[in-house]
Amino acid sequence: MTKDDAIKKVRELLPDARYEHTLRVAETAVTLAKQYGADQEKAELAGILHDIAKYFPEDELYRTISSHPEIPNVFLNYHSSIWHAPVGAVYVQEQLGLLDLDIYNAITYHTTGRAGMSLLEKIIFLADYIEPGRDHPGVEPVRKLANKSLDQAVSLALVNTINYLIERYSPVFPDTIAAYNDLIRTTGKLLKQKA
Amino acid sequence: MTKDDAIKKVRELLPDARYEHTLRVAETAVTLAKQYGADQEKAELAGILHDIAKYFPEDELYRTISSHPEIPNVFLNYHSSIWHAPVGAVYVQEQLGLLDLDIYNAITYHTTGRAGMSLLEKIIFLADYIEPGRDHPGVEPVRKLANKSLDQAVSLALVNTINYLIERYSPVFPDTIAAYNDLIRTTGKLLKQKA
Repeated sequence: MTKDDAIKKVRELLPDARYEHTLRVAETAVTLAKQYGADQEKAELAGILHDIAKYFPEDELYRTISSHPEIPNVFLNYHSSIWHAPVGAVYVQEQLGLLDLDIYNAITYHTTGRAGMSLLEKIIFLADYIEPGRDHPGVEPVRKLANKSLDQAVSLALVNTINYLIERYSPVFPDTIAAYNDLIRTTGKLLKQKA
Repeated sequence: MTKDDAIKKVRELLPDARYEHTLRVAETAVTLAKQYGADQEKAELAGILHDIAKYFPEDELYRTISSHPEIPNVFLNYHSSIWHAPVGAVYVQEQLGLLDLDIYNAITYHTTGRAGMSLLEKIIFLADYIEPGRDHPGVEPVRKLANKSLDQAVSLALVNTINYLIERYSPVFPDTIAAYNDLIRTTGKLLKQKA
């Protein structure tokens, strides 16, 4: 699958604002891939495709998760806003025929993270969080960190995400805490020094 | 095992300040047990015994966890300050001969919580958090809630605990998030209204 094929496909499936977000995530992902030595082509494709299922109807997302044993059912116990991630990954494999497990995982875990993320998974997670269109509170320190340390930037993005959820008394997907616990063992001291 | 036997034992094993904390937890636990219809005698015993292993040497805590398959080894991947909880529960069964699984679990999960806590588990967790000697930030709103809703009070204590850890970039024991996710489904809306 070429970059142009991927863009054509998401252009069909996403409204304008989301499509433009997608292009910015792809661009940010390429920059991070260059900086941290990841495969730039895969980073670009994963960036373009990461939100492909974002506007699938909720009942279709539900059915896809229910009927695919490779997607952990636990997703269905959490807010539907995270369902598009694993469903998008399956769609990219089954409908677009892009059979790359690292891209599959980068799409699956782009909203929640998980313990033991690959380089590409971290890049897509972070690119989605810091692309230039994002202006959520706390994004600027993560952007700055992204120039210095991928793991520290991902850790701080996870901290912000967990804080956001806990402040609103909303559930936290277990993989998100697992990602945080995994990275914070090496990044915690450094982040504390900077805080 | 009588209340007096339990007090005698913890008096031997704990320094003064911790011993006095223990008596206050027991008293608070009895008050909560009366209020929420739990077994007052069990609440008192579990309160007295909950910190019994708090001053066991770290290497002994480590050995006990390693040699007891009924204690999840995952405890060893987290800070040693939580190890006394499962080790105390085992000590109460093996050394004191108190064979009560609800008390065992209340001691095991008194610092971390877990999904699906029993009434007694919630009471010991909360009593430990709000006993009158505690003055950590955020304790007062939890004390007030404890008069109205056990689940809401436990939820808010978990929120405070998770916030405290995340602010310091410290790991969060997975059972703590599981406890939070479990209770917040029913308490989240009510807590949000009050906030």
